[in-house]
Formats: sequence, structure tokens, C-alpha cells
Amino acid sequence: MKKHIVVQKYGGSSVANIDRIKTVAKRIVDSKTTNNHLVVVVSALGDTTDELEEMAFSITKTPPEREMDMLMSTGEQISCALLAMAIKTMGRDAISLTGQQVGIQTDKAHTRARIHTICGQRIRKALSKNQIVIVAGFQGVSLEQEITTLGRGGSDLTAVALAQALKAKVCEIYTDVKGIYTTDPRIVKQARKIKTITFDEMMEMASLGAQVMQARSIEVAKKFNIPIHVRSSFSKEEGTMIVKNKEKLEEIAVRGVTRNKSEAKITICAVPDQPGIAAKIFSAVSQTGANVDIIVQNISHTRHTDISFTVLKKDIHKALTAAKKIAEKIKAGDVLHEDDIARVSIVGSGMRSHTGIAALMFQTLAKNKINIDMISTSEISISCIISSEQSDKAVQVLHKAFNLDKIK
Amino acid sequence: MKKHIVVQKYGGSSVANIDRIKTVAKRIVDSKTTNNHLVVVVSALGDTTDELEEMAFSITKTPPEREMDMLMSTGEQISCALLAMAIKTMGRDAISLTGQQVGIQTDKAHTRARIHTICGQRIRKALSKNQIVIVAGFQGVSLEQEITTLGRGGSDLTAVALAQALKAKVCEIYTDVKGIYTTDPRIVKQARKIKTITFDEMMEMASLGAQVMQARSIEVAKKFNIPIHVRSSFSKEEGTMIVKNKEKLEEIAVRGVTRNKSEAKITICAVPDQPGIAAKIFSAVSQTGANVDIIVQNISHTRHTDISFTVLKKDIHKALTAAKKIAEKIKAGDVLHEDDIARVSIVGSGMRSHTGIAALMFQTLAKNKINIDMISTSEISISCIISSEQSDKAVQVLHKAFNLDKIK
Repeated sequence: MKKHIVVQKYGGSSVANIDRIKTVAKRIVDSKTTNNHLVVVVSALGDTTDELEEMAFSITKTPPEREMDMLMSTGEQISCALLAMAIKTMGRDAISLTGQQVGIQTDKAHTRARIHTICGQRIRKALSKNQIVIVAGFQGVSLEQEITTLGRGGSDLTAVALAQALKAKVCEIYTDVKGIYTTDPRIVKQARKIKTITFDEMMEMASLGAQVMQARSIEVAKKFNIPIHVRSSFSKEEGTMIVKNKEKLEEIAVRGVTRNKSEAKITICAVPDQPGIAAKIFSAVSQTGANVDIIVQNISHTRHTDISFTVLKKDIHKALTAAKKIAEKIKAGDVLHEDDIARVSIVGSGMRSHTGIAALMFQTLAKNKINIDMISTSEISISCIISSEQSDKAVQVLHKAFNLDKIK
Repeated sequence: MKKHIVVQKYGGSSVANIDRIKTVAKRIVDSKTTNNHLVVVVSALGDTTDELEEMAFSITKTPPEREMDMLMSTGEQISCALLAMAIKTMGRDAISLTGQQVGIQTDKAHTRARIHTICGQRIRKALSKNQIVIVAGFQGVSLEQEITTLGRGGSDLTAVALAQALKAKVCEIYTDVKGIYTTDPRIVKQARKIKTITFDEMMEMASLGAQVMQARSIEVAKKFNIPIHVRSSFSKEEGTMIVKNKEKLEEIAVRGVTRNKSEAKITICAVPDQPGIAAKIFSAVSQTGANVDIIVQNISHTRHTDISFTVLKKDIHKALTAAKKIAEKIKAGDVLHEDDIARVSIVGSGMRSHTGIAALMFQTLAKNKINIDMISTSEISISCIISSEQSDKAVQVLHKAFNLDKIK
């Protein structure tokens, strides 16, 4: 009988210290059966990534990206070697491999490389010897044999890409939570673990603030229809399955509520209402590298209008500088900014067929005296920008209003 | 004009922390001129090697060697990336390269690999762009693309092998001392820095206890006649040149005195005096992997004899177990062992032509009431095993007797 391949990925908190590495090793050994092959992707040990970054930044504020990749990739090389040792010590054969050894070929975009191809030959050879293969996550190699890294959360991408290349049955993402929840359990006690969620919903949740999995890797999983099982490293309980859209899933309109405090708002007042003025503003802001998200332009009754938009908090300074400059140029009014905002979103692919979802969201917030500042919608999500201090309450009342505390 | 290549090697203490990395970077930038190319080999940051080893040993007492190499090689990858960053920050172009990227091809003997060939192509390409090349020491890659390491002190070997492959003008070994001394300055205050020493003398000194440079790399330097300059990372002063034998050097009979406490002595008493009995004993001991060094067999007046030999202290347990077993088998007497011994040696290629060197050594020790336990000689060295507590004194009186405090 041909064995099926399971790809497992363990994050940094799962291998934060030697004891946890041993626990993870035991778990891996336990999940190896006579009819499966295991390929395990591992992140760097707990704080290693931060420590390495700190060293680089104590040399220069702008470390060259190629050298950063050279440096940062050692974190995963260390953890995969240690994990292989721990497994071998338990009497199971294992072998660790770097991104280069696996043949994870990427482009040359250091610190944010994209995977082109994966040559699975070396892995297949190891699997044919019944070895458990431990792969250093987050890293690859360019055609020129330069070490590259895939960006923060890149180990998820390594796992999903390997699952695709090896035609794995499932890609298991092990983490320090038990799965995907209807919302953050720290905000809502009644938050429920979601049994099954679609790729689209998960992508939306990830990009709107749920931090369990990197959005880019879910995109890849969706593209190749690779089922993902998000589950806890410390419990044998089933977690959340991320799968393709299914009829049955459509029944629920709203799958979860997210909250995200990473954005800040900029408002340019009294912008002359002329064609092409918005383009001028946003091309100026984009040129700074700041990513503009929600944009709201008030209906103009006079010949002037207010334009508000959000950017990531980390980009606020450069965006603000650019906004002030362009405001002066186009003879607009004051430029205001607001840091204490939060984005609260509801996500669910059922929105496509259900009506009244937006209305219920706005009514619920209004009933609770929560003022909505900006609104943004996608096909399967609705986001409101509100004040940061009201955001806990907003998540709680929305979670209840959409009956998320009652789903099985 | 064609530029000449200089290979520099900086040890772990020279890059022990970020400040020292910056100091070393400054030194490298200062030594880059318009008519040289620099290739810099760097060891792991100060304690990194020990820290990585500790992690492995907290998982298992016998970490698999392949995984050890995977783990340990990260130390040098980190330091070379940081050093390249520091140099670039100072406005000079630099690039770090792993053993794999340089193409340091080794055999498959993990943790003690031997270099087969070096493909210098990648380095030459970088040099042609006038980049300073920073190479991760101590590591290579097997034909199967497995990461290998060259054993402790292996960065010296990387430097010498690169100097050979690139036809470098000189190989500079930067360390925390100012050069090679006539003896350990911690034992003899009057110890003098040696200006020039031959490869043979240096090899002998290194294997007899002088720890500045790895013996194996001096052997390679000798084989390819690569001049080595041992000097301080923290001073611009000239250090010690290690060169091929020269007429002029022959004038001095004794170049230095070394002391080594790494050995222990085992004595098998009342060994039956039969042909082939020594072979039996030493093949039994060797089979444990213990390296037998000095062997002394007392002249046999009766039909029994005593056989003494030294092994490295770290091997004493296994050697002793084997010795006791074989002693019982061949019906010999007691097996004794002595840990508190030291080997004191005088080294000098002038011994070949000078007479009376051994006599002066023995007389000097006798005059100072230092008892000689065992004697061993090579073409250019004489070693005496004495009690450990008398070894400081022995080094002092020998240093004086051979006028080493007076050489220029």
C-alpha cells in the first residue's frame, strides 16, 4: 500500500525551549504510523528571531537585506537540527534539511522572497528510507544560490508549498491555540472553536486580524486546494479544518468577528472638489511605501470635501508627511490624524446569500452607542472603524448578535 | 596592476560581541588598499559554539554527527553575516558566504571532515567587483550537499586552504595574543615573541601544547608553502611569521618551550616478557579509540616487565578499562594510573645540527630536582613527562637554560 504524506508545521512557541522540542518530538513520533510519511516544517526557537534581529540592528539601523537573510535563516537551521536529534534519540530515524537542501527555489527578493518551485527529490529519497524529514521553515534559495527568507510567518508558506509539491493528504499547522475561534477568546469568553472554515473566510479573517496563520499561505492552499488543519501542539484535540467552499458551510452567514488595532487614520480637510485630486493625494502617499487601506470621501455639498484614509500605524509618520505636503500643494485645509482606532469586522461566506447582515451589524453597534467612523466591505466581510476603547465591547455585542456563542 | 590577495582569519574571541565585530570590521576596512583583495575567514561569536553544543547535549549525550554539523555551522554563518553588515555600514562593499556557497568541498566525515577541493569561482567573482569577501570558517559541504564541519580550530584550516586555492600572498591569523611566544607568558614573564618560526617547529609546538594555531592547518600551509602571519586583532604590531625552513633560522637550537597537561599515564605492572605481548596490549587499548602517545617499557631483568603509556585525559576511562581487561587476560599484575602529570617539551629545528641539547635539558631538570618520568623525542623536539606540580618550574628553568629570554 502506498503511504500518504502528512506535512506538519510547528511554530516558534511550540519549540520555544529544549523541553518543548522534546514534547514536539514525542508528538511527531506518536503520529508516525506504518502508512504515513511525515514531513515536518519548523520555525526558529521562541525568541531566536528577535535576538538575531537585535544583533543586526545594534550594528546598523538599515541592515542589508541579503545579509539579513543569511543571518535570520540560521534560526530555523538550529531548530530543525535540534528537533531531528530529539526524534532520533527516541529511536525514530529523522533528518533535518535546510531550504537550500530541500531545493525551495525562490526569487531574489531578500526578506520577502516568493517561492518559484520546490524540488522534492531529496525529501522523497529520505521518505523512501522511512525517515521523518524535518525542514527548516521560512527559507529558500535563489537560482544564484543566495539564501532567501519568505517574510514573517513564512514557515506556514513553506509548509503549504511543501504539501502541494509532495501531494500531501493534509497540511497540519500546530500552534499554541486549539484552532480558529469565532473571535479572540481574550475578548469574548464565549468564543467557540470553529470546526470548519473556508479558505476565503480564513484569508479574510487572517488579513483582518486573526493571527493564527499567515494570509499568503492560505491563498496558496486555496489555489491548490490543500486542506489545512490548524490545531494545538499541546493537545490531541481536533482543531479547525480549512477547506474549499462547501454547500453545507453556506448555512452560517457570519463565521467570526475580528478586531485589528494596527491601523491609524489620516484626514485631509477641505480638499478642493476637482477631478483627479484623489489620485494626486493617494499616489503621493503610496510613493512613501505606506499601504493605504480604507478610503472615505464625504459627499461634497460645497466645493470642498474631507478625505479620510487608514494606513498601518508603523507607516503613519511617512504617510502624514506626504499628506501634509500634498495638502499644501493642492491648497487643502488641515491634516488630522487619529491613532486610537480599531477595525472590527464580521467575516462569513454566507454573506453572499444572506441579506440584512450589514443592517444587523450597524444596528447592533448603534444600540450599544458605538459610533461608526468608517465602513469598508468585501464580498465576505464588513469592517467598521470605531474608537479603540469601544472595540472590546463591539466585538462582544457582535459575537452575541450573530449567535456565534451558540454554534457547534 | 594585478591586485594580490590577502586571507585574514579572525577567531572567536576577536568577534566575541557586537563591539568587537565593529572593531574587527574597522581593522579590515583599514587594511583594504587599492592593490589588494581581502578574503576574511571568521569563527563563531565568542560563546556561540559552546551554547549550541550545550543545547544539543541537553537533548542527548550522543548527538548524531550529521545533525551536529547542521547545528554548529550556524555559529559561523551568524558571525560572517554580522561582520559583512558592519563592513558595509562603514561604506565598503562586502559579502558573506557560507562554506557551501564558497564551494568548500569536503569528505563525508561529519564533525571532522577533510577538505577535498575549493571552487574559488564565487569568491573570485565577488573580488572582481572589489567586494571584501567574508567566509564562514570551520564548515564545508560534501558532494551530497550535506553540511560538514572541520573539527575544532577548523577556521584556521579554512583560511589556509583558501589562501592556497586563491594563491594568496599571505594568510594572516588574527588572535587575542600578539604572536607565537618562546613559551606561555603566563608561566614565564620573560617569554619573548618569536619573529620567525618554521612550519615544522610550529607544528611541533602546536601539537605539544601551544594553542595559538591548529596543527593540521600548519601542516597544510607547509605542504603548499603558504606564509602565515600570526598577529593580534587588537594591535597593529607585527606578530610571528611562520615560514619554510631557512638557513638563517638554523642558528637557534631551541625555539621554544611548551607545557601540556592534557595527558594521563597508565602503567601495567609485571607484564610477562613474551614476544607479541606489547602488540596485544596496544591493539586492545587502540580499539577503544583512545590515542596512545608516549610508551615506555622498562628493561626487563626478570621474566616480567612494566609497561607505561600516556593517553589523553579525556580517554583515560576507556583506556583504563581496556588495560585492566587485557592485563587480566595476559596474567600481568596491577594496572596503575596517574593523572597529575605534565609534558614539558623543547622544540627547535636547530636540534638537527646542534649536539648536547638533550643533555642540557636533562641536566637542567636534574639540577632543579625535577624527576623525569618518561622521555619522548622527535627530530626537532624533546619531551619529558614530569609531575604536574613541578611543570611551571620546569618551563621556567628550561626557558632560561636555553637563553630564550635573550633572543631578539
